[in-house]
Amino acid sequence: MVPDPDRLDAFPNPHPARDYVIEHHVHEFTSVCPKTGRPDFATLRICYIADELCVELKGLKLYLEAFRNRGIFYEDVTNVILDALVERLRPRWMVVESTWSVRGGIHTVIRAEHGARKNHPETK
Amino acid sequence: MVPDPDRLDAFPNPHPARDYVIEHHVHEFTSVCPKTGRPDFATLRICYIADELCVELKGLKLYLEAFRNRGIFYEDVTNVILDALVERLRPRWMVVESTWSVRGGIHTVIRAEHGARKNHPETK
Amino acid sequence: MVPDPDRLDAFPNPHPARDYVIEHHVHEFTSVCPKTGRPDFATLRICYIADELCVELKGLKLYLEAFRNRGIFYEDVTNVILDALVERLRPRWMVVESTWSVRGGIHTVIRAEHGARKNHPETK
Amino acid sequence: MVPDPDRLDAFPNPHPARDYVIEHHVHEFTSVCPKTGRPDFATLRICYIADELCVELKGLKLYLEAFRNRGIFYEDVTNVILDALVERLRPRWMVVESTWSVRGGIHTVIRAEHGARKNHPETK
Amino acid sequence: MVPDPDRLDAFPNPHPARDYVIEHHVHEFTSVCPKTGRPDFATLRICYIADELCVELKGLKLYLEAFRNRGIFYEDVTNVILDALVERLRPRWMVVESTWSVRGGIHTVIRAEHGARKNHPETK
Amino acid sequence: MVPDPDRLDAFPNPHPARDYVIEHHVHEFTSVCPKTGRPDFATLRICYIADELCVELKGLKLYLEAFRNRGIFYEDVTNVILDALVERLRPRWMVVESTWSVRGGIHTVIRAEHGARKNHPETK
Amino acid sequence: MVPDPDRLDAFPNPHPARDYVIEHHVHEFTSVCPKTGRPDFATLRICYIADELCVELKGLKLYLEAFRNRGIFYEDVTNVILDALVERLRPRWMVVESTWSVRGGIHTVIRAEHGARKNHPETK
Amino acid sequence: MVPDPDRLDAFPNPHPARDYVIEHHVHEFTSVCPKTGRPDFATLRICYIADELCVELKGLKLYLEAFRNRGIFYEDVTNVILDALVERLRPRWMVVESTWSVRGGIHTVIRAEHGARKNHPETK
Amino acid sequence: MVPDPDRLDAFPNPHPARDYVIEHHVHEFTSVCPKTGRPDFATLRICYIADELCVELKGLKLYLEAFRNRGIFYEDVTNVILDALVERLRPRWMVVESTWSVRGGIHTVIRAEHGARKNHPETK
Amino acid sequence: MVPDPDRLDAFPNPHPARDYVIEHHVHEFTSVCPKTGRPDFATLRICYIADELCVELKGLKLYLEAFRNRGIFYEDVTNVILDALVERLRPRWMVVESTWSVRGGIHTVIRAEHGARKNHPETK
Repeated sequence: MVPDPDRLDAFPNPHPARDYVIEHHVHEFTSVCPKTGRPDFATLRICYIADELCVELKGLKLYLEAFRNRGIFYEDVTNVILDALVERLRPRWMVVESTWSVRGGIHTVIRAEHGARKNHPETK
Repeated sequence: MVPDPDRLDAFPNPHPARDYVIEHHVHEFTSVCPKTGRPDFATLRICYIADELCVELKGLKLYLEAFRNRGIFYEDVTNVILDALVERLRPRWMVVESTWSVRGGIHTVIRAEHGARKNHPETK
Repeated sequence: MVPDPDRLDAFPNPHPARDYVIEHHVHEFTSVCPKTGRPDFATLRICYIADELCVELKGLKLYLEAFRNRGIFYEDVTNVILDALVERLRPRWMVVESTWSVRGGIHTVIRAEHGARKNHPETK
Repeated sequence: MVPDPDRLDAFPNPHPARDYVIEHHVHEFTSVCPKTGRPDFATLRICYIADELCVELKGLKLYLEAFRNRGIFYEDVTNVILDALVERLRPRWMVVESTWSVRGGIHTVIRAEHGARKNHPETK
Repeated sequence: MVPDPDRLDAFPNPHPARDYVIEHHVHEFTSVCPKTGRPDFATLRICYIADELCVELKGLKLYLEAFRNRGIFYEDVTNVILDALVERLRPRWMVVESTWSVRGGIHTVIRAEHGARKNHPETK
Repeated sequence: MVPDPDRLDAFPNPHPARDYVIEHHVHEFTSVCPKTGRPDFATLRICYIADELCVELKGLKLYLEAFRNRGIFYEDVTNVILDALVERLRPRWMVVESTWSVRGGIHTVIRAEHGARKNHPETK
Repeated sequence: MVPDPDRLDAFPNPHPARDYVIEHHVHEFTSVCPKTGRPDFATLRICYIADELCVELKGLKLYLEAFRNRGIFYEDVTNVILDALVERLRPRWMVVESTWSVRGGIHTVIRAEHGARKNHPETK
Repeated sequence: MVPDPDRLDAFPNPHPARDYVIEHHVHEFTSVCPKTGRPDFATLRICYIADELCVELKGLKLYLEAFRNRGIFYEDVTNVILDALVERLRPRWMVVESTWSVRGGIHTVIRAEHGARKNHPETK
Repeated sequence: MVPDPDRLDAFPNPHPARDYVIEHHVHEFTSVCPKTGRPDFATLRICYIADELCVELKGLKLYLEAFRNRGIFYEDVTNVILDALVERLRPRWMVVESTWSVRGGIHTVIRAEHGARKNHPETK
Repeated sequence: MVPDPDRLDAFPNPHPARDYVIEHHVHEFTSVCPKTGRPDFATLRICYIADELCVELKGLKLYLEAFRNRGIFYEDVTNVILDALVERLRPRWMVVESTWSVRGGIHTVIRAEHGARKNHPETK
């Protein structure tokens, strides 16, 4: 079972008339490999164009910390976080990208996206 | 209440016939978190194509320094600075981007844009 | 003779409804130059949009290790790995890129691609 | 008064049939701030697709050195150098970009362009 | 007189059905300035999509070494190498880019291209 | 008048039998130039060998924030912070180093030290 | 209560006649702040000159992972790990250094050492 | 004739009881080669332990700017600046180091020192 | 069984009267973990002051390649290579240092030394 | 036969009363391998404390260029250049260090020194 998206707090977008970009870089994400039971470590990039709601940083941090002792695969957790944020914020566009530390000489990056990309450089 | 845009001085664009790009990188911006009362630190990128007016560096510096002890959120201050510069300079195009220092293992980037992006690489 | 693609294990794509990107960076690839018999070293980037199957990391590692004592040219091995992965995973899109260490003051990069590139930044 | 463009020497483009790109990075440019009388320092990027003429490096260096003790603003000098080079070389396309050292915690980049950008990566 | 393109050896493209990209980075190129008689140093990037032939690394190295004591200008040598490789390999697309060391506080980059650029990221 | 050292909280050194090294890197220090009234920005390195007391991070942060609107010179503030920490903690050895942002093309580093340097690499 | 040092496995030093240096860099350490209950992240450097025993990597990893959900301060955990390794291995010399991620704009490094430093560069 | 050391302003050392280190990094120094008449560019590092006097930054900047159009060799100017600062400040120890931009594929560093080096890391 | 040191060729030191330093950086070393049977990758630094003999590069390369399919631990192989080189060359001083790629979030460095270190900076 | 040291020009040391350090970094050195006949490339660091004479840059450049087509080993050429400079300049102390480009996955550094090292940081 994954962490509860209800931990995610939102506040009203202060400038909803403009399509501007908000990007959070999370340097300290950790979960557990469901196969080996050993910890995994990643950084996350969460980038979006808000509609009516922006995500509050404190709640985002608590929501992500709740993955600390959950067993979940790279591909799955990236999509799960995207789905939770989309459900809570209803953004105009959003991407979640996770970059994982080396395992067996290989490191992995996963990127999942929601909504039609706008003509913004940050949406790259 | 936000700083007074009247501090922003302008001088006539010396080459208005050409759509050229001016980009200021502000290395020393600080404001205050309205929730915690603690200082926030950022760097700013202000990039524009001038129409009749260019912003004078001294006044830009003084205007930005006036945020030093104001409580204002990341998303808000980025849009407020863009609005003030747009009102004062009436540029053909402008972007304001703020990059904030780490809080709780997360750092944030906000980018807001005014006007239709021209076919200039710097406008990326 | 090249390594057996049957070593490659696959697991069901947990979010097949979304075109998301998976990228593996292999830091420790080595094969043998068929002309000189001396070892070659490379890093690989394997990037794809899964359809029904994702590649399992352990099997990928074992498959790639099997090139350790095979004689094969840069251009050939890059295409051979792409072909094997495409046959096993049937991805919606995939690229394999190899970057080789310096030989005679020259280093080489090979990139081969399968399928129509989607409108995803990672597909660059 | 700005330096004399006649110092700029040109030689015939050895391969005029091809739209190829020439880029000079000038690491040692200095002029004087007309307001404070204090020295300014910049690096310049001069990038063009030649038509019949290429700029000779020795003359380019001497022309740029002649700004050493002139008072001129960032925005102005960038456009003035572009105009002088365009007049002398009549290139198919050209850009001049200046990057200035820090003043009051802010550093500035100016970019001015002449002609329709060709479909060349360097023209970015 | 420039080095003999006959030194360039070719081998059959092992995967001609696919438009894949081959990129050689030459770290040790040197020629002579025809004006001053002093040595020049550069790195080269040679990037192409092969048709029927690939260039062999040993011969490429020998061909490029033959410029060691030739007097030739930056702009000329870049185009000459491109012409020789195009004539020998008949690639679907090719670019040659040379980056020269600092002379008089200026360093120079030249890029020449042959054929219509394909929709490949490496062709950037 | 400088900030009150009483804001500095201390806790008992958990391993006083060993001469070990504690180093805090403060990324967000700002004070005011007493001559121009304009803000100054610095990073601080505070490194010490504790005796009976260690400095608590929260209090250190609050103490340093209290310089935000004080006018004080580079040389002075570095020594003042060292004196306050020494008085509060009575460390076996301590160094305070401040690195200031560029002013007029010059950036400055100040380092002040208390006590006889031990034979520890960190004390360098 | 801290993790059990019995998880640490040792193997006989294969070259005990020579004072040589072994250094492990642990990129993925995490524990919990005992005050706030929030996760802390660090990298560790463990460097030693073995006597009769070397630490086995698998057991070292498991021992360090056991701190994942323990509340313990920076200064304490660094000394605790050093004490556990010294008790298990009886090295001729050892240092443990921890580098912690940013909290409140400050990052911290702790270094604790056991035994007389030998005349080896790595012992710095 | 070299610039007048009288431009150098000094202020009383605020903490003369302590041997602390002051280091100024000058990013924008330029003079003229007495042989070729062409500009030279350097960065300077000026590091000292003050006795009764500290150098004021504004005056230091003006003194150094006065070399802008003087012909003087690398080796000479470094010693001349050291002599002027020593005469004006009478420091307990001082070093002046100049790093010059590339000429003919060679760049040069000159370092001159005054007084017995103290046991301070910065004096390295 | 380890590779045969007889593969190591030596040539007479051309300047035996002087204690000078020779340092080889080997970027492409690989052996096999004796426990897991999986490949290990390392870079080596071999640094010495020759007496009568210098090691020939070609033979050094062949000797090191012979570890490609041997099972041997990090600590052991580093000492074995040092012993082989010392026996063959009888250097006045020598160090062998190996840096291994990440395994389980940990990377390891081993350094072994022969002979009394001379007063040479490279011997660090 | 090696190049003629008579090409080396010297000028009188302008500050012989002081032991100051002069360091030249040569970015563009090339010679020929006497065994294979293929070009070698290196950077050189020449660092000294002058007595009565300093080396003139133009002559140094010409002297070093004369190795361009000579066959000479790494170890030999480094000592030969040191001997030539010592004979011409009679410095109080000197070091010559050469760093060679990669051959067969190995790059090499040679350092040779003349005279007793003074207590100067640069002499490291």
